[in-house]
Amino acid sequence: MTSRSTSGSISGSVLDAERYIIRSGLAVVINNSEFDGRLRLPDRPGSLENEAEPLAERFNGIGFKTILLTDVTKENMENKFSEIKSNLARKIEQIDCLIIIMLTHGNADSVYAQDQAVQVDSIMSCFSAENCAELILKPKIFIFQASRQLSPNSGAGIGYEKVEQEEVRVSEGVEVVRIPNEADFLAVYSTALGEKSFNQTERASPFLKHLIDELKNMGVDDDFYSVLTRVNCQVMQFEPSHDATKDIRQMSCFVSHLTKDLYLNMTHD
Amino acid sequence: MTSRSTSGSISGSVLDAERYIIRSGLAVVINNSEFDGRLRLPDRPGSLENEAEPLAERFNGIGFKTILLTDVTKENMENKFSEIKSNLARKIEQIDCLIIIMLTHGNADSVYAQDQAVQVDSIMSCFSAENCAELILKPKIFIFQASRQLSPNSGAGIGYEKVEQEEVRVSEGVEVVRIPNEADFLAVYSTALGEKSFNQTERASPFLKHLIDELKNMGVDDDFYSVLTRVNCQVMQFEPSHDATKDIRQMSCFVSHLTKDLYLNMTHD
Repeated sequence: MTSRSTSGSISGSVLDAERYIIRSGLAVVINNSEFDGRLRLPDRPGSLENEAEPLAERFNGIGFKTILLTDVTKENMENKFSEIKSNLARKIEQIDCLIIIMLTHGNADSVYAQDQAVQVDSIMSCFSAENCAELILKPKIFIFQASRQLSPNSGAGIGYEKVEQEEVRVSEGVEVVRIPNEADFLAVYSTALGEKSFNQTERASPFLKHLIDELKNMGVDDDFYSVLTRVNCQVMQFEPSHDATKDIRQMSCFVSHLTKDLYLNMTHD
Repeated sequence: MTSRSTSGSISGSVLDAERYIIRSGLAVVINNSEFDGRLRLPDRPGSLENEAEPLAERFNGIGFKTILLTDVTKENMENKFSEIKSNLARKIEQIDCLIIIMLTHGNADSVYAQDQAVQVDSIMSCFSAENCAELILKPKIFIFQASRQLSPNSGAGIGYEKVEQEEVRVSEGVEVVRIPNEADFLAVYSTALGEKSFNQTERASPFLKHLIDELKNMGVDDDFYSVLTRVNCQVMQFEPSHDATKDIRQMSCFVSHLTKDLYLNMTHD
């Protein structure tokens, strides 16, 4: 748990604004393509060139600072997140929107770092209201390209790592507003819960292909929900080329705890 | 499994349309307030007058046909769903959008019928592409006012009831489009996964109060994501009046597998 600058006052107008004000943003793209041998996971060749790099470039194109990381261990990832939070807390960096994108293997509740599976919830909770006060009331977007099938060893044994909800306060003159930990999170998944995600790294998986395309077509007035809905529509219609998978369909989706309308395109004429 | 009229042709323009065309809709409000004694669940007095009735009235106000059911058993519910599907298949009824709202108790993966817990997934899959061909490419919205805390007896034992994905085809001239089962579903939850949901039936729970208010304020040009985002913003700021729960916060959320923009308000001047 890092520093808390909950004493920084946030004006009531921010709380009640109709849309997030995004003047600066950070997008972290994590591409894992070679894994610790003990995990017995297949490589994901081509993912860096065909998916991670074009994606980072796209976020850069709409005005986000981008960081691209490859084959990161759980510890590498946690260190990077700590560094980001520390830069925010020490005012070295100021961001209005954080986007974390992970291209890797996964199962129902976890995604794979280079060396081990990490719970999706624990990744997101790094930036929750109580763990990262600097991002309170700001959108935190997580995008996962990974399968979400139930593995035999996921489930009851691991369980749900419930962080006790502490008081997180945003001072606002005399009035104190407490913010739920889940507020302002958006999670975007390449596939529905319990399903496989197509991995076509030789020319980008359908979800990433369409996400990159729709980010390219996104105008300044396009809200991000509409962009994601168009991605859903494209992914739904994707037909795999292998006969063995011809009758399998993929459906991307998103889970929104956002509290304001979200427009990501910072580019202006 | 009911009849399949997948032979009915759907034009390509419907598949690629930017928004769902909604000229008629059905909203089913299920309010469970007294439960089978063996379940040892508290009553939910006041919910009918303060929540279910105003909600049904609101959906009626924006042009939906509404059905209000109280204290339904699992069997009652399944029979009602079969009747709806049968009416659709026999062309007795034609609807462009189905909304099912459940006001009840719940836990992480289930909600309570009058007599037993029912998996949320199994409720939704009643209207999946393979189980209800008449609603393919049409939005299916599920709204749950219920807690989503992990109960000790939910989890591994119950597991995930995975229905094998069958071929669902929409004929479209010569071209055949297969639709994933999850497509065009929107699930709206009063609280985040793993969390309690405030139940203030003496004057409507915060989630339902704000949902009813925002449906009242919803204009013809307001897309439904924006409406739900405004509800999230209001629920986030709700402060419970009991001292014991003063530091607990609730965060509503929604899970979208929609493939087009959604505008629910059918009222026109």
